Amino acid sequence: MSVSRPIGPDLQIHNPAFIESMVGRKSDTCIDGFLGIRHEEISAGRLVAEFDVEDRHLSFIGNMHGGCLAALCDHCLGVVLYPVMSPGSWAATTEFKVNYLKPVSEGTCRATAIIEAMTKRSAVVSIRVENVTDYDTRLVALAQGTCTVKLAEERPD
Amino acid sequence: MSVSRPIGPDLQIHNPAFIESMVGRKSDTCIDGFLGIRHEEISAGRLVAEFDVEDRHLSFIGNMHGGCLAALCDHCLGVVLYPVMSPGSWAATTEFKVNYLKPVSEGTCRATAIIEAMTKRSAVVSIRVENVTDYDTRLVALAQGTCTVKLAEERPD
Amino acid sequence: MSVSRPIGPDLQIHNPAFIESMVGRKSDTCIDGFLGIRHEEISAGRLVAEFDVEDRHLSFIGNMHGGCLAALCDHCLGVVLYPVMSPGSWAATTEFKVNYLKPVSEGTCRATAIIEAMTKRSAVVSIRVENVTDYDTRLVALAQGTCTVKLAEERPD
Amino acid sequence: MSVSRPIGPDLQIHNPAFIESMVGRKSDTCIDGFLGIRHEEISAGRLVAEFDVEDRHLSFIGNMHGGCLAALCDHCLGVVLYPVMSPGSWAATTEFKVNYLKPVSEGTCRATAIIEAMTKRSAVVSIRVENVTDYDTRLVALAQGTCTVKLAEERPD
Repeated sequence: MSVSRPIGPDLQIHNPAFIESMVGRKSDTCIDGFLGIRHEEISAGRLVAEFDVEDRHLSFIGNMHGGCLAALCDHCLGVVLYPVMSPGSWAATTEFKVNYLKPVSEGTCRATAIIEAMTKRSAVVSIRVENVTDYDTRLVALAQGTCTVKLAEERPD
Repeated sequence: MSVSRPIGPDLQIHNPAFIESMVGRKSDTCIDGFLGIRHEEISAGRLVAEFDVEDRHLSFIGNMHGGCLAALCDHCLGVVLYPVMSPGSWAATTEFKVNYLKPVSEGTCRATAIIEAMTKRSAVVSIRVENVTDYDTRLVALAQGTCTVKLAEERPD
Repeated sequence: MSVSRPIGPDLQIHNPAFIESMVGRKSDTCIDGFLGIRHEEISAGRLVAEFDVEDRHLSFIGNMHGGCLAALCDHCLGVVLYPVMSPGSWAATTEFKVNYLKPVSEGTCRATAIIEAMTKRSAVVSIRVENVTDYDTRLVALAQGTCTVKLAEERPD
Repeated sequence: MSVSRPIGPDLQIHNPAFIESMVGRKSDTCIDGFLGIRHEEISAGRLVAEFDVEDRHLSFIGNMHGGCLAALCDHCLGVVLYPVMSPGSWAATTEFKVNYLKPVSEGTCRATAIIEAMTKRSAVVSIRVENVTDYDTRLVALAQGTCTVKLAEERPD
């Protein structure tokens, strides 16, 4: 089954160095380092990033803490923009919403983020997170949100 | 371009009479009647519904009032569930989120709603709204939300 | 019970004529006219707006269509900004999220919208909707969203 | 300034042992351990939890990674329910939405979570996050979401 998506922004790569520096790299600092996020694929308007579920991600109930998926979505919302922004610009998530569909306790959480709309100043991104285990692949979270694009000279107030 | 969606709920039609009664029908009461919603396609887990932008939908700025798209999304969130629920059950939206991507002032607003996950008691639905005019088709809104399924004997508290 | 809210934007009235033209006025066009929204109170960063539940708002189940509350929230998200924007500017909702807490079938739906944060270009607004009947007052919806502020000379793309 | 909140669920403490075990405790495992969350105040339907911004929370831009606030909100959404649920029950976030209002780079992030509505099976919670530094206190995030309540004998599907 596939969803036709005939309409979307026409995006160009403006920052190939970002892609080169990120693809295949595993985060080792900040909350993306805590998760252990690897950036698997990056193209114009699309990002695939994933992490393996480890004991440190599990809450006392034995399931993964939902905050891990929320942080994964937030991370992807920003990273998916960098290749299509001018070098020196930066992206900040301004809002997002996530629905958790299934509990997760093992395997890999793989997010696919897509830029659905983009202007000079902001973009709307949708994210699907799958949980891949030895025996199946299940959709476990769905998110959508907005990023603001800041030029290099702009500083947060 | 298409988004592969290999994972989703395995849904069966439990209420074919609902589909027969709705497809091709234009709402003439309630807020769906104000909008003038037509139900174009209904299958297991998928709904296409649309309305033509009329003067009564435009705000004083000359663009369509965003509330029209919000009401369209809310409407689709519930209707997409009826074919896959037991006859006599009913669906109530419990929450949703919408991003408006482009202003709309003419043409047709066409929503495609998809059930992304479903249990006996609730479902998560995503919706893409396109604005179709004589010269192009643009993605204008993106929504996702949750519906609760109520059996016939249950009454709202 | 009250929620202390010690922190918020310091807002000034820039458009008193808007307030004068709106307070006490009942909408009679567009989707706010379909709802029958009255603007009860407007001050710097705060709006109270309401409508009476009429038969035309009820779905075939006998409850008010959720789309009516969504449209009310969308409407308030924009209107609450006008008094604190320069005359000639306009506000457009870019995204919002709503949780429905209780079904509604009668009485008055009263929304209180508050500007929680505001920059020159955008604002984040929260909304609480109560259902007031002869015998009680219940919180029935909770929303939060973002509006973009456009200067008079800017046109939607 | 304060927001009157005359309407809300009438909640009772059903699990005082949970409060005793949590108040004053700093998380040292899972993503709440990574953040370093302390549970400051817990009462019927209200939770205050906070963490100090440390270097490990900052992204390469020098601001705190938004995922830290998202994970804080997700965490509070669940924890605020435990005192008012029967011992042995557990709570799982099913969805939430967050707006980031200001960038954060230092000080303490303090979340106040409130149960806005609750049934046997679910609750809607709102959260306000403030950033407290030596020179001011600013509202930096606003969230609302839904938790599902599971009885001890229920297992995730």
